[in-house]
Amino acid sequence: MPVFHETAHASRELRIKRSRARPLPRLSAQPDSSRNIGQDDSERFEVVVIGAGPAGLFLTLLLARYGLSDSLACFDKKPGTLKAGQADGLQPRTLEVFSTLGLHHEILDDGCHMSEVAFWNPSTRGGIERTAFVPDVVVPARYKHEVTIHQGRIERILEEDFQAYSPSRSIFRATEFVDFSLDPVTDSEYPVRVKIDVMGDDESVQRKVVRAKHLVGADGAHSRVRRSMGLQLHGDTTDHIWGVVDFVADTNFPDIRKRCAIHSDTGSVMVIPRERIASGHYLTRLYVQIKDGIAPAAEEGATLDEKAKARQRRAAITLESILEQGKRVFAPYKIAIKPGTVVDWWAAYQIGQRMTPSSTLKDENGVERVFLVGDACHTHSPKAGQGMNVSMMDSYNLAWKLAHSIHGLSPKSAPHASLSNARYQQNTPRTVLNTFESERLGVARQLIEFDSKFSSMFSGQIGAEDSVEGLTHEEFLKVFSDGSGFTSGCGVEYEPSIIVDRDISTQNGGVINSTKSSVAGDDYLSGILRPGRRLLDTVVRRYADANLRHIHDEIPSTGRYCIFVFATHDLVDRQNDNRPSISAQALEAICHDIIPAYPTDTIELVTLHPFRTRDFEWDQMPSCLKDFAEMSFHGPVGTEPLYEIYGVSEDGGAVVVIRPDGYVGAVKCLSDVRSLESYFDNCLVRVDALGGGK
Amino acid sequence: MPVFHETAHASRELRIKRSRARPLPRLSAQPDSSRNIGQDDSERFEVVVIGAGPAGLFLTLLLARYGLSDSLACFDKKPGTLKAGQADGLQPRTLEVFSTLGLHHEILDDGCHMSEVAFWNPSTRGGIERTAFVPDVVVPARYKHEVTIHQGRIERILEEDFQAYSPSRSIFRATEFVDFSLDPVTDSEYPVRVKIDVMGDDESVQRKVVRAKHLVGADGAHSRVRRSMGLQLHGDTTDHIWGVVDFVADTNFPDIRKRCAIHSDTGSVMVIPRERIASGHYLTRLYVQIKDGIAPAAEEGATLDEKAKARQRRAAITLESILEQGKRVFAPYKIAIKPGTVVDWWAAYQIGQRMTPSSTLKDENGVERVFLVGDACHTHSPKAGQGMNVSMMDSYNLAWKLAHSIHGLSPKSAPHASLSNARYQQNTPRTVLNTFESERLGVARQLIEFDSKFSSMFSGQIGAEDSVEGLTHEEFLKVFSDGSGFTSGCGVEYEPSIIVDRDISTQNGGVINSTKSSVAGDDYLSGILRPGRRLLDTVVRRYADANLRHIHDEIPSTGRYCIFVFATHDLVDRQNDNRPSISAQALEAICHDIIPAYPTDTIELVTLHPFRTRDFEWDQMPSCLKDFAEMSFHGPVGTEPLYEIYGVSEDGGAVVVIRPDGYVGAVKCLSDVRSLESYFDNCLVRVDALGGGK
Repeated sequence: MPVFHETAHASRELRIKRSRARPLPRLSAQPDSSRNIGQDDSERFEVVVIGAGPAGLFLTLLLARYGLSDSLACFDKKPGTLKAGQADGLQPRTLEVFSTLGLHHEILDDGCHMSEVAFWNPSTRGGIERTAFVPDVVVPARYKHEVTIHQGRIERILEEDFQAYSPSRSIFRATEFVDFSLDPVTDSEYPVRVKIDVMGDDESVQRKVVRAKHLVGADGAHSRVRRSMGLQLHGDTTDHIWGVVDFVADTNFPDIRKRCAIHSDTGSVMVIPRERIASGHYLTRLYVQIKDGIAPAAEEGATLDEKAKARQRRAAITLESILEQGKRVFAPYKIAIKPGTVVDWWAAYQIGQRMTPSSTLKDENGVERVFLVGDACHTHSPKAGQGMNVSMMDSYNLAWKLAHSIHGLSPKSAPHASLSNARYQQNTPRTVLNTFESERLGVARQLIEFDSKFSSMFSGQIGAEDSVEGLTHEEFLKVFSDGSGFTSGCGVEYEPSIIVDRDISTQNGGVINSTKSSVAGDDYLSGILRPGRRLLDTVVRRYADANLRHIHDEIPSTGRYCIFVFATHDLVDRQNDNRPSISAQALEAICHDIIPAYPTDTIELVTLHPFRTRDFEWDQMPSCLKDFAEMSFHGPVGTEPLYEIYGVSEDGGAVVVIRPDGYVGAVKCLSDVRSLESYFDNCLVRVDALGGGK
Repeated sequence: MPVFHETAHASRELRIKRSRARPLPRLSAQPDSSRNIGQDDSERFEVVVIGAGPAGLFLTLLLARYGLSDSLACFDKKPGTLKAGQADGLQPRTLEVFSTLGLHHEILDDGCHMSEVAFWNPSTRGGIERTAFVPDVVVPARYKHEVTIHQGRIERILEEDFQAYSPSRSIFRATEFVDFSLDPVTDSEYPVRVKIDVMGDDESVQRKVVRAKHLVGADGAHSRVRRSMGLQLHGDTTDHIWGVVDFVADTNFPDIRKRCAIHSDTGSVMVIPRERIASGHYLTRLYVQIKDGIAPAAEEGATLDEKAKARQRRAAITLESILEQGKRVFAPYKIAIKPGTVVDWWAAYQIGQRMTPSSTLKDENGVERVFLVGDACHTHSPKAGQGMNVSMMDSYNLAWKLAHSIHGLSPKSAPHASLSNARYQQNTPRTVLNTFESERLGVARQLIEFDSKFSSMFSGQIGAEDSVEGLTHEEFLKVFSDGSGFTSGCGVEYEPSIIVDRDISTQNGGVINSTKSSVAGDDYLSGILRPGRRLLDTVVRRYADANLRHIHDEIPSTGRYCIFVFATHDLVDRQNDNRPSISAQALEAICHDIIPAYPTDTIELVTLHPFRTRDFEWDQMPSCLKDFAEMSFHGPVGTEPLYEIYGVSEDGGAVVVIRPDGYVGAVKCLSDVRSLESYFDNCLVRVDALGGGK
């Protein structure tokens, strides 16, 4: 190809770089460039995050992507990322969320996929025998497995991505949170005064004060932020004790590479296969039930003496005693540390389920200034693989609400809050940011209830015939299966609020309790649309280029709302009749009236069609469709019942709001598209209320 | 989870890092640490690559991954990566290779997937009309589409990955190759003296000499390395002239997001949809036939006067004239540059197919010291989207052979070369490294033949009824479809050689021409095993953990051979009979005799089984299977006819050698597993010939 002439343009530099999420628009004033020196010489940040574990890093990363990259700081007392142990499992829902951020590749490539669970029970011939294999994930999800991978690796992935968005690198390690105080907001835009101890290389400590608009405690179960808020974890600790060990196994147990629930006459073990490590070996994690019971652990507030006694009793547990007990359970199979390898990590823990009564602190105007996420507001057993997942999902829920609030995108008070929540509790959230606490404490409560049941059951003994504690294998299997909504993370359902609208409304805007709905069915785990639940991923074929696309790839986590239009067959009828069809009317109202009523680039449009062939052309459809959604207009693949999966009829269609976190916000009839404005008025400021600005 | 005790180990640091390919073992002496200062003070490298385009970067990256990271340099005269234009398409086979290196994610995420081709032809009502949609990729492949993405972005991805393997960063830009000379190898281990001009920031130029064991010219169509070898490109240039332009299109042409072949009465256009750019727009590439013919371009050796005339004629072509001609072809549809955007890149070129008669230069011992890859040894039209792909595949073919040679893994002369090549040409390759030239020049020859036919045809006119040049739409479609082996990259077939063994041999080692073979069928594009062709990817279920796995993920490009055992039903019969089954015998011979006969960690094992359920246990199978292949033992998924796809019978089984580049090297009967030694003796040194070393 003898090229003999070419021109180029400077803007093309961007063509070769890694693509980035575009930041959210900002209506509020930018923090001024001298922002980090306040009048009292303290550094100032819009958000200060305490703790750089998965929850803290994920929050910091999300805020940076949404646009806060320059006014953000994360402090952590450790000198580096976690090196071993602790959490290691990612649920299907977490994997879905990671994939909407492009963070999933390394995790899926290098993590251990758990596709199947093997159940082992006492054999009538002595020892144990396999009772069943069941799929690890039984609910529909983009990824039909969990992934185990080192928590430190997830932290590294989050931090590397963060650095692409925040060149000034705002993660400060070896810095310890001391406490905070809240000034009156009339005195300062940065009312939270945060005391930080900066540890020097020479073991010197320098105390400094930074000021923040918002403070987030992601500092774990022993959270100092929580203590500084005057809050405690409440709940129970059981006398079930478990040892956990990560090692390379030398074993003839046949299912060592599968998740296993082993109940033997001598105790229980859970096997969690782990990723391949640099040596080429595969790690295994064992949870081993320790049979010698100990007294319930001392609560906060217990006397030192009680704490000391409990500590003493637990200290008797050693790596050797954990492995010895494991060997007894595995018999007649052999299991040992592979010669030439060293144990990666081990620990012993006592099962407990505890949470805070609240997770925010408000200023005198009712605006949340301090938040708790992750273990700082709920702790529980690791058995159901929830910890890291629920913690990061706290951050995922908070990040966009906080960014919308700081950027001035969400109204200071939702105009329709009282109307649409009339049937719900008094004292309901009146701003988008308010909904963080109610949504996530709700999930924490359900989680703790489930975990309590699940882990007690797991610590119980199952007999082949004569179960000592009355729990049969069948009962265990049922709880395991019923819990799949939880253990997959896909069953979370947020309660009705200003951003979860379950009202069915008529065309003239009145709220009715009609049974007529645009959605039929109630198997929400399988995809039926339900405000408060995540949109199920499906594969569709894009009209413009015939590419197969995952629906989840159409709703990347960039902090924007998305309107999904399920068009009906009348979409292409425009040419046959001078009156636009219902689908066309809905699309035109959305494109020309609704989307432009709110700040530019805060609402996106995805349109689905029910046609199984491409025998219709762009010029048969409303022109706004190509203008607004040329590359996000999709139909079913083959004979896949796309609309049916979501509970939408191909004749009736529907209009659906997807929140920035991928949860369904509202489902309306195509003929009732105007009611979307009531929804969005609660979530976003109107452009016409801004005095002409956008 | 109140953790109260833990231990940790320093080696765990590796747990959090991105995983890396492990280097090949090295039997030859390491280049000494003072390696880069020779006796004459010149820097020394084992390999010097000239040119940091896709072919040069890919080669450099592969060599670094295989273990040459510290003794490698790549020089390029440009100051940075390419910014626009030129090649933009990746074939399915290139995507497959990239995925075996973990380089595919960003390309698949952000590139434009071409799933369908639309054919447009003159309409009887005037203008053009769509005649057909056909899938872009009609052969089985891991990815059923091509991807278009900026060449500069591919270069950036390759360079970023290279940096992870070569911390000292050995890509030197703004350095121009001058020429080389070859010293007698008796005088130096680094016989290639390479002259380089280093351009200073102040436009000063400093000439230096570096010494290399091997030099690779990846310096494009005007290769100075080629000229320095005394070689020229030979071939024809036609009078077909095409303009090419990358821009954001404003159009009502309905198929602008699909690859289109448009033949109109006023000329031809090819539409190549491109990726989304940072502004949110989608690029389009148009290839526009320029109707005013010009004289064939001057060959190398033509007089200056002729060259000047040709240049003058071509200079008349402008961006405007390309777009004007494009508009005429698109009529009645409108197409223009989208207001507010600027054209990304444009060029005009003349179609030609040219190649070198040879692509290597040998020293006095017959060892290749200089190689040409990519455009330096073959140029052709961009129409079939071959250029960048074939160039990178040259490097992919060369890299492992060169690494094996430098590391002392491959024998200096293949012992069975004369035997197994008796029926082939005299003067056949006698070393693994020798096969680079024969394999890749063979592909270049086929490519040029195909491209010549394809691009001539594309420049021809197609009439709805009365074709002027006699080419009907049906004929065009047929050539397009027949060429899918080429255009997908999946149809490459290397000729028999010491590393492509098509012999069917008996158990006692004699070569026979028996029709009895372990493979039935000849639809090689659809997967039937064929020495010289790539192994088709399929999805299998791993026995140990029930995970779904792509077969290609079992043969990552780490420079190692792999033995695939297709076991038969007798695999689990060991316990019923004291004599081991045929499958067990084959596995035991492979694990205990064959693999250990060659350097440690150069041959891997993958075993497939034909069972559709997991009702058999590890202890029914030979113990070497779990020891050698616990995590690479797989069976069919559901009712997928796994063995049938490869042409292997479930009763007969087969043993297959996969070369380090994923091509089939040999296919043998299970009962004839010993003949693998003849194959490997040609490829790898025997451990027992090394005097006790490994």
